[in-house]
Amino acid sequence: MSEAAAVIVADDPVLESDFAREMVRQMRAIDTYGTYDDWPEAKILAPFVLTKAMRREIPIVGDPDEVTMSRVSAYYNAIAATIESRCGLMAVPMIHLSHEGFGRALITVGKLVVMDKTLRDVHRFGFPELAKMKEDAEKLVDKAAQLIETYPDVANL
Amino acid sequence: MSEAAAVIVADDPVLESDFAREMVRQMRAIDTYGTYDDWPEAKILAPFVLTKAMRREIPIVGDPDEVTMSRVSAYYNAIAATIESRCGLMAVPMIHLSHEGFGRALITVGKLVVMDKTLRDVHRFGFPELAKMKEDAEKLVDKAAQLIETYPDVANL
Repeated sequence: MSEAAAVIVADDPVLESDFAREMVRQMRAIDTYGTYDDWPEAKILAPFVLTKAMRREIPIVGDPDEVTMSRVSAYYNAIAATIESRCGLMAVPMIHLSHEGFGRALITVGKLVVMDKTLRDVHRFGFPELAKMKEDAEKLVDKAAQLIETYPDVANL
Repeated sequence: MSEAAAVIVADDPVLESDFAREMVRQMRAIDTYGTYDDWPEAKILAPFVLTKAMRREIPIVGDPDEVTMSRVSAYYNAIAATIESRCGLMAVPMIHLSHEGFGRALITVGKLVVMDKTLRDVHRFGFPELAKMKEDAEKLVDKAAQLIETYPDVANL
């Protein structure tokens, strides 16, 4: 992981964003043994960045391992937490993966599905750069917030 | 499974119901090797019935095996299919299980969550009698249909 750690510079301004902070919080939450305790944020989030060259090294077809799966969970948990803090309503993530990394990620608020994403190639989960991760997540959060605003009754069920 | 086969009599009128027929269809759909081809319906649905005595034989804590999991899927798939044929809108089931058989079963229609059930003790999944299975399922379908009627916009998203 020493190469991976270099893909995010320690003073990347994205690290200061709410979403990156939430991601770090989620990663620390699943870090049972306190491995990340003295890691800088750039190092904790480094595995989420997969440059083109890094992606090329990973086989096209493969089963996601548990570490990758926990990263995918951390990402969607962070999105759910962000929706929750934005809208003040509980947002519940649910991820379903079949073999070979295909699946579906869902976030519900009340009886409203505020995010519904088909997952593919989960074993190669990652973003070309940290800024792209934040950008994608914010788009999903915005769309969710819009849906909640349009259908408050259903979101409050 | 020879004892289990006896828990449903071959002329049980419940076997003629739409839901039982749908359940048989779902079970046949996952029967890759055609094992059920010449089985009567009562025998195909027998594993869904767990009498008190049978339940007592199963340990309280346990991991659900694949066969049990596929039965749980067949049940919620049948509910989704029934909702679909009743409302004319696609109903998508999603089951998420963590270890020890805890989890959540969800059915969505459009952006509407029409069924949301917490699963417990999935390794002991079953109903005291066939009529109870049908009754429970019909309650879930009715509730779903009601939700779709109340929020057609969201169900059509």
